[in-house]
Amino acid sequence: MAKVKVGPGPYLYPMPVVLVGAQVKGRPNYLTVAFAGIVNLQPAIIALGLGRKHYTNLGIKKNKTFSVNIPSPKLVKATDFCGIYSGHRVDKSGVFKSFYGKLKTAPMIEECAVNLECRLVRIIPLEADELVLGEIMEVYVDKKCLTRGAPDVRKIKPMVFTVPDNRYWALGKAVGPAWKIGKTFSGKHK
Amino acid sequence: MAKVKVGPGPYLYPMPVVLVGAQVKGRPNYLTVAFAGIVNLQPAIIALGLGRKHYTNLGIKKNKTFSVNIPSPKLVKATDFCGIYSGHRVDKSGVFKSFYGKLKTAPMIEECAVNLECRLVRIIPLEADELVLGEIMEVYVDKKCLTRGAPDVRKIKPMVFTVPDNRYWALGKAVGPAWKIGKTFSGKHK
Repeated sequence: MAKVKVGPGPYLYPMPVVLVGAQVKGRPNYLTVAFAGIVNLQPAIIALGLGRKHYTNLGIKKNKTFSVNIPSPKLVKATDFCGIYSGHRVDKSGVFKSFYGKLKTAPMIEECAVNLECRLVRIIPLEADELVLGEIMEVYVDKKCLTRGAPDVRKIKPMVFTVPDNRYWALGKAVGPAWKIGKTFSGKHK
Repeated sequence: MAKVKVGPGPYLYPMPVVLVGAQVKGRPNYLTVAFAGIVNLQPAIIALGLGRKHYTNLGIKKNKTFSVNIPSPKLVKATDFCGIYSGHRVDKSGVFKSFYGKLKTAPMIEECAVNLECRLVRIIPLEADELVLGEIMEVYVDKKCLTRGAPDVRKIKPMVFTVPDNRYWALGKAVGPAWKIGKTFSGKHK
């Protein structure tokens, strides 16, 4: 197949869409982020790439806590709003209904089906952004998004983000079970 | 809405599905990974969380290069195969057709629509996994997956992964344009 070089860029397909919550100057603030990924299983550690001038970073550094919230397509306008307008200029504390968990200082979003409550592990300065590592200390899930006690992505309805079209997408159909469907692979290997 | 605590876990919804390529002992090896995220925009840096005993890590450390390849649902069996069987025991060099780019030592997958060719920036030991940071030096895209010269996710057809159901999913419908739809948000803010 003919390959074309398109130049370096953040072309990871797709990226998750999350709202990062932090308490800044006594108020909850939420920032929309697609630069996020789990990087350690036990304990569960999440990595965020945050532009270093973000208002949110102030709260993360002060409280050593933050949250990661998973919005659904119903919340797309509010989600995108939190990515367009900075907490430096706009008070976003009323965009969502906030609640707090055991860490006390990490505001979480009631309207999001899943909330990851994190303690700051480390901040690593990168070229332009700050790499924020947080240990997931507790996970809150809407009761109606559970199936037999476990989070059910079909009910959670997360979104993903892609560049360069800068678009939010819904989740599609199930493709297959992991650590299972590969056992039927019959291609070349030794 | 009633929230239920489900305990700490890697509940980021959803995670991308990528195949990480590295040259190990003279042969290409590919590892399926969902712990991945972009963490810096310029230059584009990707973070991977890799269990430290993976065969792939040997090649990344030796060559200081690796690749990140985006499989589509058509490749789900081969993709899952590369997540089940370790390069320590199975020679996976023939599972895909490999090609090399300007870094010379990062094998990439011909059958994947998008290939990120990376140079190792840094490895940060975490509790259980190794956090691998790589700068994306070049991106290769199948010509037929471009629209007006830009990568088109509808043609690329990436997959995502979710826990605890351990399932691969296809991308769904477009929800809306980022940095745009939020301008019509009319909720509470100041």
